Amino acid sequence: MLDMRDFVQFVLVRTTHPGNIGASARAIKNMGFNGLTLVAPNYFPHDEATVRASGAEDILQNAKVVPDLDSAIGDCEIVIGTSARSRSVEIPLLTANEAAAIVHQEVKLGKQVGLIFGQERTGLTNEELARCHYHLFIPCNPQFASLNLGAAVQIVAYELRLALSDQVMTVAPSGDFISAEALERFYAHLEETLVTLKFLNPENPRQLMRKLRRLFNRVQLEQNEMNILRGILTAINRHSSQDSD
Amino acid sequence: MLDMRDFVQFVLVRTTHPGNIGASARAIKNMGFNGLTLVAPNYFPHDEATVRASGAEDILQNAKVVPDLDSAIGDCEIVIGTSARSRSVEIPLLTANEAAAIVHQEVKLGKQVGLIFGQERTGLTNEELARCHYHLFIPCNPQFASLNLGAAVQIVAYELRLALSDQVMTVAPSGDFISAEALERFYAHLEETLVTLKFLNPENPRQLMRKLRRLFNRVQLEQNEMNILRGILTAINRHSSQDSD
Repeated sequence: MLDMRDFVQFVLVRTTHPGNIGASARAIKNMGFNGLTLVAPNYFPHDEATVRASGAEDILQNAKVVPDLDSAIGDCEIVIGTSARSRSVEIPLLTANEAAAIVHQEVKLGKQVGLIFGQERTGLTNEELARCHYHLFIPCNPQFASLNLGAAVQIVAYELRLALSDQVMTVAPSGDFISAEALERFYAHLEETLVTLKFLNPENPRQLMRKLRRLFNRVQLEQNEMNILRGILTAINRHSSQDSD
Repeated sequence: MLDMRDFVQFVLVRTTHPGNIGASARAIKNMGFNGLTLVAPNYFPHDEATVRASGAEDILQNAKVVPDLDSAIGDCEIVIGTSARSRSVEIPLLTANEAAAIVHQEVKLGKQVGLIFGQERTGLTNEELARCHYHLFIPCNPQFASLNLGAAVQIVAYELRLALSDQVMTVAPSGDFISAEALERFYAHLEETLVTLKFLNPENPRQLMRKLRRLFNRVQLEQNEMNILRGILTAINRHSSQDSD
C-alpha cells in the first residue's frame, strides 16, 4: 500500500537558523510526513536543530541536503511555494487549505509534490517563485504577517494532514507527468531557441521567460505534449542552422 | 465595533520554557489575537521569550500573569482545554477545526472564551481538564503525537482566525451567561451541600464532583437557571440546619 504522505516533500531553502530546521522536522513528523530536503542550509547538522526536533531526529538524519533548488525539486511534478500574500500575482494564489485540497488531488494521481519554504528574513525570491505551479499563503494578520518558519511548516503540514488523513493511494502512480527537471530542460531548450530566433535578446530579456514559465506551469504539461513541444523546438533549431549554412 | 477576536484569551499553564511563551505570543499576534494569560510560568519575563516573540513583544507586555488557573479563567464563560486525543472521554472532544466553529458561535453571542494549554511535558492535569467545557485535540501522527507548545498554540490560533476571520460582532454582548468564577461558586455551594446531606463523603469522594461538573459544564447554564439551582441549594442548607436544631 502506498501512503499519499510519502509523495510530499518539504523543502527549506537557505534556512538561517538551525532551530527552525529542527522545529520543522518535528512538525513534519507530528503530522505523519517524513520528506525533508534542505537547500544550502546555513548550519546543518547543528545541536540546536537536534534539540528542537525533540524526537524527530530521524527526519533530520534522513533529510536530503542539496546545493540548489533545482536539485531539491528535480523529481517533483508539482511545486508549491509558500510566501506572503501579495508577493506575486503571476502564479495561482491559494490559501493553505485550498493548496492542501490540490495536493490531495495530485498525490492521488501519483505525482510527487514539493512544498518550498524560503529563507526566514527574505522568503522565496522571485526566481524561486517562478519555479512554482502554485503560490501558497497562510491567512494571517496583515499588520503582523511574518510567521516563524517552523510555524509556517507546522500549519502547512497540519492542513495537508487533514486533507490526506489516513488515506492510502487509490490510483497507481503513472509515469505520464513531467518532472521539474524535465520542465527545466524544456525551458532551457525554449530559451535557447528564442535567442536563436532573436525573439529573445539576452541583453534585454524583458521578463519573457518568466511569462512563458507562468503559462506552461499553469497548464501542467503531459508527457506527450512535452514531446511535441520539444520536437517543435528541435525542428526550429534544425531549420535555423540550415538557414545559416 | 467589537472585534470577535478580543473575546478570545489564550491561557498557558505552568509553561516550562520561556521560548515557548515567546513563540506563542508571536503566533497569537500573527493570527490577529492579543489575549495572553500566563498561569505560574517557570520564567517570565525572560530574554528567550522576547527573542522568540520577534515583534510580538506587545503581547508579552500586556500578558496577564496569575498564580492559578481559576484566576486566569474567572471571566470566561467558555473554557476549552487543549490536550492529546485520548486523555479524557468525559468532556466533549473536538478537533481544532470543530472547536473553532464553536468558538465562533459563542463569541458572536458575546461570550468570553478561554483556550487552555498545559505544561510542555505533562499537558493539562485531569483537574484542569475538569474545568473545561470542551476538550480540543489537534489531529496528528498517533506514533508521534507530542506537539511543541508553540506549535499547538499556532495551529489553534490559525483555525480560530479562519473561523473568525475579519468578522465583527453582530450581536451585542449580553450578561446572561455564567462566568467560570460564578460556576465555581456554584460547585463549591453544591459540594458543601452534598457533604451536609452526607451524600458526598469528603473522605471518599468517588469522582462525584467531577461527574457533576461534567454535567453542568455540558449544559452551559444560563443565569436564571443558575439562580434557581443556587436557590435550591440555599433551601437545602436552611432545611438541614433547621433539622439539626
